[in-house]
Amino acid sequence: EAGDLVVEVAPAVRLYYVEVEPASLGSPGDWERLQAALAASHHLRDLTIDPLLLRSLQPMLRKSNWAVTVTVWQGREVLRVEPGYVESLYGLAVDVGSTTIAAHLCDLRTGAVLATEAMMNPQVRYGEDLLSRVSYAMTEAQGVARLNRAVIRALNELAAKAAETAGIQPTEITDMVLVGNTVMHHLLLGIDPSELGQLPFALATYDPVDVKARELGIKVLHTGAMAHVLPCIAGYVGADNVGVLLAEQARLDDQITLIVEIGTNAEILLGTKEWMLWGSSRTGVSFEGAHISHGQRAAVGAVERIRIDRDTGAVRYKVIGDPRWSDDLPDDEALRPTGICGSGIIEVVAELLTAGLIDGSGRFVKDAAERSPRVRWTGRTAELVLAPAGETASGSDLVVTQADVRAIQLAKAALYAGVKIMMAHQGIDRVARIRLAGAFGSYIDPIHAMTIGLIPDCDLSHVTAIGNAAGDGARLALLNADQRQLARQAAHSVTYVETA
Amino acid sequence: EAGDLVVEVAPAVRLYYVEVEPASLGSPGDWERLQAALAASHHLRDLTIDPLLLRSLQPMLRKSNWAVTVTVWQGREVLRVEPGYVESLYGLAVDVGSTTIAAHLCDLRTGAVLATEAMMNPQVRYGEDLLSRVSYAMTEAQGVARLNRAVIRALNELAAKAAETAGIQPTEITDMVLVGNTVMHHLLLGIDPSELGQLPFALATYDPVDVKARELGIKVLHTGAMAHVLPCIAGYVGADNVGVLLAEQARLDDQITLIVEIGTNAEILLGTKEWMLWGSSRTGVSFEGAHISHGQRAAVGAVERIRIDRDTGAVRYKVIGDPRWSDDLPDDEALRPTGICGSGIIEVVAELLTAGLIDGSGRFVKDAAERSPRVRWTGRTAELVLAPAGETASGSDLVVTQADVRAIQLAKAALYAGVKIMMAHQGIDRVARIRLAGAFGSYIDPIHAMTIGLIPDCDLSHVTAIGNAAGDGARLALLNADQRQLARQAAHSVTYVETA
Repeated sequence: EAGDLVVEVAPAVRLYYVEVEPASLGSPGDWERLQAALAASHHLRDLTIDPLLLRSLQPMLRKSNWAVTVTVWQGREVLRVEPGYVESLYGLAVDVGSTTIAAHLCDLRTGAVLATEAMMNPQVRYGEDLLSRVSYAMTEAQGVARLNRAVIRALNELAAKAAETAGIQPTEITDMVLVGNTVMHHLLLGIDPSELGQLPFALATYDPVDVKARELGIKVLHTGAMAHVLPCIAGYVGADNVGVLLAEQARLDDQITLIVEIGTNAEILLGTKEWMLWGSSRTGVSFEGAHISHGQRAAVGAVERIRIDRDTGAVRYKVIGDPRWSDDLPDDEALRPTGICGSGIIEVVAELLTAGLIDGSGRFVKDAAERSPRVRWTGRTAELVLAPAGETASGSDLVVTQADVRAIQLAKAALYAGVKIMMAHQGIDRVARIRLAGAFGSYIDPIHAMTIGLIPDCDLSHVTAIGNAAGDGARLALLNADQRQLARQAAHSVTYVETA
Repeated sequence: EAGDLVVEVAPAVRLYYVEVEPASLGSPGDWERLQAALAASHHLRDLTIDPLLLRSLQPMLRKSNWAVTVTVWQGREVLRVEPGYVESLYGLAVDVGSTTIAAHLCDLRTGAVLATEAMMNPQVRYGEDLLSRVSYAMTEAQGVARLNRAVIRALNELAAKAAETAGIQPTEITDMVLVGNTVMHHLLLGIDPSELGQLPFALATYDPVDVKARELGIKVLHTGAMAHVLPCIAGYVGADNVGVLLAEQARLDDQITLIVEIGTNAEILLGTKEWMLWGSSRTGVSFEGAHISHGQRAAVGAVERIRIDRDTGAVRYKVIGDPRWSDDLPDDEALRPTGICGSGIIEVVAELLTAGLIDGSGRFVKDAAERSPRVRWTGRTAELVLAPAGETASGSDLVVTQADVRAIQLAKAALYAGVKIMMAHQGIDRVARIRLAGAFGSYIDPIHAMTIGLIPDCDLSHVTAIGNAAGDGARLALLNADQRQLARQAAHSVTYVETA
């Protein structure tokens, strides 16, 4: 089970118990007798062995009195030999986000997630967003190596932490699946992402990559552990999106579904189980809190929820890290807001509209200040005081300006136009279901999103957040090797619609 | 050409020049377009790429204006991409002897040997002979790692030196073939050779091993360079012997040929192009100068040639490092002998017999001292003064004792019995040709060897030294990939005859 998805547990690594003919004078080598045993007991043929595993094969066979459990990857390569009858088998599914890296340690017998560990992507110190990291890679002599080492170190740490949480050794992990956007995909493989930062956005490869984890520098796992990186689709449609595609295609039916993942680029998937379109809209950084007067990342202290009373124009808000609304508690107990994050800014624009403080064009209405004590005019434009100076962390007013509303309008318009272009491409005017993917999709309130026209109209009960679907896709590919084929097919069969 | 052998140059690595479609918006990744170009121009399909090569692919394609030469290993994996049209292709054939490691840098277009570099196997510091190294591996905690590192360091050094001699960069080398006895085979792969030191002499693997050179720690070559280790046959019949087999089977015809390589174990090959027997005789260390009164390794100062005058019993000798015979020059100019090496001890026993100083049973005859001024009795046994005290480095007599003759008799009997058992196995009583393999085979004089019964009777003109045939075999496998298949087949089809 990956999220609400059910998949047969049939991972790329499998265990085979065998009893090997003991060595005798003139008998073949240990590896050859192990091969014979695997062929006789499990019909496995034409196997290769990880050359480095030859180093431990002989003592292992002898100490286990010739009864061992062999881990075979894709029915092709022996990558581990353990003493006796072994049932445990673990893998790691990792979503390498540009902000957060999340690793799920899975039991590859049951599919259960035993531990999930996340950390901030340490590449952040070299560049807050993707473009600044690509720019760092392009301009700094050791840029690519530094960015690569940062993510590899993080992967080692997360694997070790997840193993500790689950109460296993990291060396018990023999397989991992990685997803990430194209820049993360390149950097984790040590590939310079410079080409992704300029026309024509050429990928080094979009095919899936199979590589020994150790060759990438991921050394806390078993020496023979494999890493599988899901394929990409285009220069800006990465393995994370293929992960989403993989998670979603299991859910698709005849109904037209729209899947949206909002970031600096919004990724848009539109389709049924029969066809699938992919598009990408450059929404910019407003939804990440950038270019907004008091915008900030989604972190403790950020305003994430806002309500404006339709009658009185009173404002109340909720801050990340405090479950209570601002009007539910005395000022001196409240967690003081530091800024407003993406989900907050969407809500504030939607609430301003619903409360009639801005009009359909996004402009503050003439009598806005009369309708709400929190609206004030500053010359020819108005602004909403979300939190007055006395309540904020900085001690000055936390405001949302006319310019902020305009920035959000631009961002949402980019996404909405992309969706509409894709719907027109397919000749449809309505979608049956909308799924909001990614962390941001989990935070935003569907009704507010629809109010500002971020997403097209749809029965609200059919708008759902699917969370980190990219990570779900990684888990599917970890738990079931056929899903890797499906991912590849999906990556090839999807139709890309140019929306720029 | 490898020695006197001619082989079609068709190495495992091949070059393919392609012009790749430049990147454009929405086009596949660079690796996918490179694959398309290789398929269109050279019908190469289902290729994989060394994952680490993805790191340099994009800048390489762009700086070469999309025209590159691709190095493909075994028609399967792309391991290098170079700008423009490239013709040069290099490989390294290495004979990892327990005493000497010799590397031949070959031009893989012409087959020419561009440089040969040799050095003492630095494992010698951990054990003079094979058994003492196995013992070191068994008893020292870091023994295997130390022995492995020593040989890997040597391989890096030799590759760098050979490249320098040939005037190329070591990174231009993309393939290498290694041979060595089973202990060397294991140690260069980092495998503990302990099992080879005890019954039932089990190999970790006897199949050929293909591995990235970098995975073995051989890092001076191209990052993508491959290493191929020839197969072994049995616990004491290693890849060096398969190298000999490979070199020899190209020479075999209908005539029965005996190939003997003398070391602590004598390896014995007997066959025609239709059939092949392999045996091994434990000759011990006498031929290496051990357990002989004044025995020593073949090195400067060792007596390597001896003549005893049949009439006068006078003795003259030749020392390694001095081309002149001892009676050709005044005493004060001679290089003073330090001991007697294997080829010398064979000659001295043969000369004692021919001069009638010992009888057919190996015993000094009663009137030996009368027949030669150099024979003297010490109690009930006699000894030959090879060099009197005044001529030697030590200042004391250099003698060959009755016990020394007995030791050589035991050693030669082991070999001769092995040969005879194998001949009997096949029901033959005569061989048409004898080849003496290895360094020792080049030093010993066929007539002396036949005189003492080291080798069976054969027309003397059909007894030849074939030198380092193991290295020749490595070169054959480097120059022609089909030879690797032949080596594997030969290793499987040879019939092992137990001679112990």
